[in-house]
Amino acid sequence: MTPRPKKQTQRPRNTDRAPHLAIECVTPELDASRYPVKRVLGESFLVSADIFKDGHDLISARISYRGPEDSQWRYAPLTFDYNSDRWHGGFPLDRIGRWTYTVEAWTDTLRTWRSEVEKKVGAGQDVSSELLEGAIHLEAASRRAKFGEARTTLKSAAAHLRNTEVHYGLRAAEGLSPSLIALAEEFFRQSDLTAYHRELVVQVDREQARFAAWYEMFPRSCGLEGCHGTFAEAAEALPRLAELGFDVIYLPPIHPIGTTNRKGRNNTLNASADDPGSPWAIGSEFGGHDAVDPRLGTIDDFDNFVVRAAGLGMEIALDYALQCSPDHPWLRQHPDWFFVRPDGSLKYAENPPKKYQDIYPLNFWCKDRKNLWAACRDVLLFWIGHGVHTFRVDNPHTKPFAFWEWMIADVQRSHPEAIFLAEAFTRPKRMKHLAKLGFTQSYTHFTWKNTTWELRTFMEEYASPSVLEYYRGNLFANTPDILHEYLVRGGRNAFRVRLLLAGTLSPIYGIYSGFELCENVPVREGSEEYLDSEKYQLKARSCDADGNINADIAALNRVRRENRALQLYDNLAFGGSDNDQILVYAKHSPGNDLIIVVNVDPNRVQESTVHVPISALGIGHEEYYIVQDLLTGARYTWRGSSNYVRLDPASQPGHLFRVENSISRNA
Amino acid sequence: MTPRPKKQTQRPRNTDRAPHLAIECVTPELDASRYPVKRVLGESFLVSADIFKDGHDLISARISYRGPEDSQWRYAPLTFDYNSDRWHGGFPLDRIGRWTYTVEAWTDTLRTWRSEVEKKVGAGQDVSSELLEGAIHLEAASRRAKFGEARTTLKSAAAHLRNTEVHYGLRAAEGLSPSLIALAEEFFRQSDLTAYHRELVVQVDREQARFAAWYEMFPRSCGLEGCHGTFAEAAEALPRLAELGFDVIYLPPIHPIGTTNRKGRNNTLNASADDPGSPWAIGSEFGGHDAVDPRLGTIDDFDNFVVRAAGLGMEIALDYALQCSPDHPWLRQHPDWFFVRPDGSLKYAENPPKKYQDIYPLNFWCKDRKNLWAACRDVLLFWIGHGVHTFRVDNPHTKPFAFWEWMIADVQRSHPEAIFLAEAFTRPKRMKHLAKLGFTQSYTHFTWKNTTWELRTFMEEYASPSVLEYYRGNLFANTPDILHEYLVRGGRNAFRVRLLLAGTLSPIYGIYSGFELCENVPVREGSEEYLDSEKYQLKARSCDADGNINADIAALNRVRRENRALQLYDNLAFGGSDNDQILVYAKHSPGNDLIIVVNVDPNRVQESTVHVPISALGIGHEEYYIVQDLLTGARYTWRGSSNYVRLDPASQPGHLFRVENSISRNA
Repeated sequence: MTPRPKKQTQRPRNTDRAPHLAIECVTPELDASRYPVKRVLGESFLVSADIFKDGHDLISARISYRGPEDSQWRYAPLTFDYNSDRWHGGFPLDRIGRWTYTVEAWTDTLRTWRSEVEKKVGAGQDVSSELLEGAIHLEAASRRAKFGEARTTLKSAAAHLRNTEVHYGLRAAEGLSPSLIALAEEFFRQSDLTAYHRELVVQVDREQARFAAWYEMFPRSCGLEGCHGTFAEAAEALPRLAELGFDVIYLPPIHPIGTTNRKGRNNTLNASADDPGSPWAIGSEFGGHDAVDPRLGTIDDFDNFVVRAAGLGMEIALDYALQCSPDHPWLRQHPDWFFVRPDGSLKYAENPPKKYQDIYPLNFWCKDRKNLWAACRDVLLFWIGHGVHTFRVDNPHTKPFAFWEWMIADVQRSHPEAIFLAEAFTRPKRMKHLAKLGFTQSYTHFTWKNTTWELRTFMEEYASPSVLEYYRGNLFANTPDILHEYLVRGGRNAFRVRLLLAGTLSPIYGIYSGFELCENVPVREGSEEYLDSEKYQLKARSCDADGNINADIAALNRVRRENRALQLYDNLAFGGSDNDQILVYAKHSPGNDLIIVVNVDPNRVQESTVHVPISALGIGHEEYYIVQDLLTGARYTWRGSSNYVRLDPASQPGHLFRVENSISRNA
Repeated sequence: MTPRPKKQTQRPRNTDRAPHLAIECVTPELDASRYPVKRVLGESFLVSADIFKDGHDLISARISYRGPEDSQWRYAPLTFDYNSDRWHGGFPLDRIGRWTYTVEAWTDTLRTWRSEVEKKVGAGQDVSSELLEGAIHLEAASRRAKFGEARTTLKSAAAHLRNTEVHYGLRAAEGLSPSLIALAEEFFRQSDLTAYHRELVVQVDREQARFAAWYEMFPRSCGLEGCHGTFAEAAEALPRLAELGFDVIYLPPIHPIGTTNRKGRNNTLNASADDPGSPWAIGSEFGGHDAVDPRLGTIDDFDNFVVRAAGLGMEIALDYALQCSPDHPWLRQHPDWFFVRPDGSLKYAENPPKKYQDIYPLNFWCKDRKNLWAACRDVLLFWIGHGVHTFRVDNPHTKPFAFWEWMIADVQRSHPEAIFLAEAFTRPKRMKHLAKLGFTQSYTHFTWKNTTWELRTFMEEYASPSVLEYYRGNLFANTPDILHEYLVRGGRNAFRVRLLLAGTLSPIYGIYSGFELCENVPVREGSEEYLDSEKYQLKARSCDADGNINADIAALNRVRRENRALQLYDNLAFGGSDNDQILVYAKHSPGNDLIIVVNVDPNRVQESTVHVPISALGIGHEEYYIVQDLLTGARYTWRGSSNYVRLDPASQPGHLFRVENSISRNA
C-alpha cells in the first residue's frame, strides 16, 4: 500500500497583504461599525482593543482618528493593561460632527531588539552578532532621517556598534541607551503596520443632545380667552418657562391646517367653523410644511419668537410630521408622492378598520422618491435657516428606515448641531433601531413604567452599556396623547413623583403644558386621551392656578443645572429597598455624588431601610457620610449602604440627596 | 430678520438599493462574520434574527444557505416568535465542509392585503377598491405563472374580483380564500427582498472533532527493553488501547531526528551516541517532515500501522511541528526560509537568554514565503495521503496567524475531514484567536485547574455560549511537558480524579502514556517535567503494572460511548456544593441526563449537601428521582436540588450518575 499524496500546487495568495497582528474587540463599536456610536462635545473618547501577534515580539499600537473636517489622520497612543490583557487610549472630542477612528498596531522591532540584547548581556552572552543587527536598524533609521543632526547621530551610533575594536559589552551599553532608541523610533518604519479591518464612526453632538429640560406647548393656546393665540402672544409665555428652568420649547406643528375632513373637539368627525383643527393635519391653501399657520402670524413673527427664546437661553424645537392634510399643496403638485387607488384617487391614512381621512401618508418608495426625499429634507433646511436646530419627529417608525438614515446624515453633514428626537412608541427593538439610524434622542415607554420594578427594569435596559452607546431616552412625563392612569388616580402627589423621576433618571426629560397644573381629566374612564384635548381645540390656562407644581419644577431644573451628575447618561446605579414602593438610585460624577430615593406611592406614607449602591459612589461599608436633600435643605448622617427613610407623599415625593464629604474623610 | 435657508440641491443616491427591511442580530455570528462558527455533521443548524420594517405590513423571512459544493442557494423558512420578538429557523448539516448562510426578508404583500381586507369586511366597510388591488396582485402572479392551471386559476380569480355585478362581500369571500392566497404566493415577486448585509460561514466537521478520547504515545518506546521501538512493535500496543476505549492515537513527531546539538537524557546538552534525541528536532540526512525515522521503520511500515489502528476503530494523529533540526534538508535547500544573521549564518531558536541550538525556526515572512507556506501545507497533504486526518499542531502561537488561517482553509477545502488540534499554552485571548482562525480543537489550561473554583471558572468560560461557537477544549490530563504538582502530591487517587474530570467536563480529552500507571516523578522538586522524560530517551513500561488505573479508563470510555450527553459540548451546567472540595455539574441531552459529583481532594473523605442544577435537567423542586452511578452500579433516590453525598477518594473519585425516570413520572 503506497497511497500517493494529492497534488496541490497552488501557492498562497496575498501574503503581502495578510495582517501580521490580530486586532479584535475594539470598543466602542456598534453592530460591527454598521452604525455610529454617540458622544457629546468636550468628552474624552476612550478606545480599547485586544491586540496580539504570534511569538514573543513587543508590539505598539495607536488610535488613528479624523475629526469632521480633518483631511489627515491624527494619532493617539494605546497603552497595554496587563490585567485585562487589553489596550486602552483616548482622544478629545473638540468639535461636533462625525469622527472616524480605528486602531493600528505594529511590531516594535527596536524595543524587541533592545529587550533581547539586554537579557543576553545580563546573562553574560556574546552579543556581537546582535549589535550588527542593531547597527542595521540604526542605519535604516538614519536613511529615513535624510539629513540633520539626527541622521549624523544615528549613523555614528551604527558605526560604533560595528566597531569590533571595542568590547561588545561596551558597545551594547551605548546601543541600548534610551535616548538613542527613542531617536531611532522617530524614524522607524512600521513595516508590518496592521490596521483594524473596519473604520468606526462616532457622532459627536452638542451637549444639549444629552442634557436638556423640554417643555411642549401649543402657541395657539396663548391667546386671550377664546381667541387663537399668536407667536407674539406665545412669546410672552417664554420668560415664565425660562424661570422654570426649561431649555427647549417644543411646538407641535405650526403649519397651516387642512380644512377638508378637519377633526372637531375631542376628535369628533364634524368640526365646527371655529374649530382650529389638529396641527398634525398639515397643509392648506396657505401652504405646507415650510409655511406658518397665518393665525399664528408670519414667518417674521416666528423668527422673532425664536430670537426671544434664544435671548432667554432657550431654543425652539419644531415638530417634523411627514404627512399631509387633504389640502396640502403637495397633493396637487406631486400626486405621485402619495399612495394611489386603482381608480386613480389618493389614499388617506388607515389602520384597518380605522380611517384617518384628514391625513394622507406619503409613499416614500414612489417612483419619484428622490425628489420626495429631497423635498422632505429641504423642509428641515428651511427651518434650520430660521434658527430651529432641534426637531421632534412624529411617528418615524411609519416611514422607511433608509429615509431616516440618509436624511439625518445628510442634514448633519452641513448642520452637525441638528438634534432629532424620535417619537416612536413601538416595540423596543424598532425604537432602538431608529436610534441606531441616527436619531439623537428617543421617546421611551417611561409614562407606562410606574412601579419600582418597572422603572428599574426599564432604566437598566436603556442605561445598559451596549444601549447607551446610541440610545438617549428623553423621559417625557406626559404628552398630548398620553395621560397615564397613574396621574389620573394619583393626582398632584403623583405628578410630583413623576417629575422627580423623569428629571433625575435621565438628563433629558420633558413635560407637556398642563403638567405643572396637574391636569388629569381623561376624555373617558380608562382612556389616555385628555378631555377637551388641546390637539383639537384651544385651551386657556392660568399658569399659577391652585395646586400647581411650578416650585417643584423650578427647583428640580435648578438642581439639575447645579449638579453635573444629573447631566450625564451613563452614571446611573440602582440600589435596593426593603419596601417595594421605594426606589433608590445613585448618579455619580467626579466630585458630585447623588442619591435619589422616591416613594412611588402617591397616597401613603412609606418607610424603609434602603440599600445605597455605595460601591458606585466609592463609599465604604462602615463609612459615615452626610447627605443633604437639595430640594429641602435637610441634612442626615448616613453610614454605609443601609439607611432608613420615611417619605410622606403629601409633603415630598422623595429625597434628592447630595453626598457631602464623608465624616471619615474630613476627620 | 429673514434668514435664508441654505441651498442643498443634492438628492439622495442609491434609494433603489436602500434596504426596505432591517435585519439585525443574526445568530450564530462570530466577530461580524470575520470567522466561521463550528458545528458537526448531522446537527440541525439553528439561525435566529431580529427583523422588522416601518409601518404595519406583514413580513416573511427565510434562511438562505449553500452547502460545501452547492452551486445554488437553498432556503429554509424563518418563523416569528412573539415573546422574543425574534425569528427562528434551521436546516440540517448533512455534509462536512464550509457552509454559507444568511437571512432574507420581504414584505408579505399578499398576506398584508388579505389581513386588511378581512378587517374592513369585518367592520362592514365597502372593499370594492381593495378588491381591485387584489385583482392586480393576482394578475401579476398569473403573468409569472406563464402557463398551466395555476395561470388559469389566478386569471379567473382576478376577473371575479373585478366583477362589479357581484356584491363586494361575496367577491371578498372568494378572494380571501387561503388556497388562492397560497397559490398566488407561489408566483409572488418579493419586490423589496432584503438580505442581511453579511454572508456567514459555518465549518461543519466530522463528529470526531467534538467527541473523542485521545492517547499520546511514543512508538519508539514500544521496543524490547532498551531497544528503539518500531511501528511494527507499536502496532502491538494498539489492541490494548482499543480495549481501553481510545479513539485517537497521537504520535509525537515520527520524522528523522537531527544529530547536531542533539539533546541527551533529561534535556542535557551532551547526548551520548545512543541517545535517541528529541523527536521535535526534526530532520536529518534521512529526510525532513515528509520522512519517517528509519529506526521506526519505513513509510510502508507506517501505512500498516495506520491500517492496523483503523481496523481497531482508531485513527492516528500526527504531530505538526514547523521547525527544523540543524540537519534538516531545508536548511541546505532553502536557507532563505530561515532567519539569517548579519554574518550570513542561520539562527537557531532562542528565548533570551535561553538558547535552543538543536532547533531552527522558520521565517514565515521571508521573501520566498509563498513557497515556504506551500511546502508546509504540502507536508500535511503528504500525510493525509498516508491516511492521517488529524494533526496536533505544535506551538501554533509562535507562527503567523495569517499562515494558519490560509493553511487550514486550504487543506480543508479538499480535505474537509482534516482535524487540527492547537497546542498553544499562552494567554487565553491568543488561544481563542487561533481557534477562530480555524483550529478544530485546542488544548486548554485544564492541567493547572485543580480546585473546584478554578475548574468551574475555567469551564464556564470555555463553555459559555459565545466561546463554544468556535472553541472546543481538548482536556489533556497530562502531556510529556506537563506533570502537575496535583498529580505529584496526590498520587493514584489524584490521577483518578483528573481522569474523571477530563472525560466528563469535555467530550474531547486525552492522556499521555504513563498516566494509566500514575507515573508522577518530576525531574526535580517543583518542576512540571518528568524525570527521565520520554522526550529524550526510550521508556519501557509494563502496561498492567501495580496501581494502574486501566479499569477506570476503560469504564469511563465505555460510559462516554453509551451516553450521548457526554458526547456534546454545549450542555454543561454547574451546580453548587456546601463543601468546596466537591464539584457538581450536569450534562443534559434528550433522554440522557447525567449528574457528575467529584471530590477533588485526593487525600480525604469529603461529604456535602450538593445542589443539582435541576432546571437544566427538567427536574422539579419537590420531585423524587433515582440516580444510578454508571461506574459502580449503585442507585440512590434523590429529591429536588439538594442531596447528600459522601466520597472516599480511596474507593472512588466521584459519582457519574445517570438520572433514571423520576418516580413521579413513573407513578
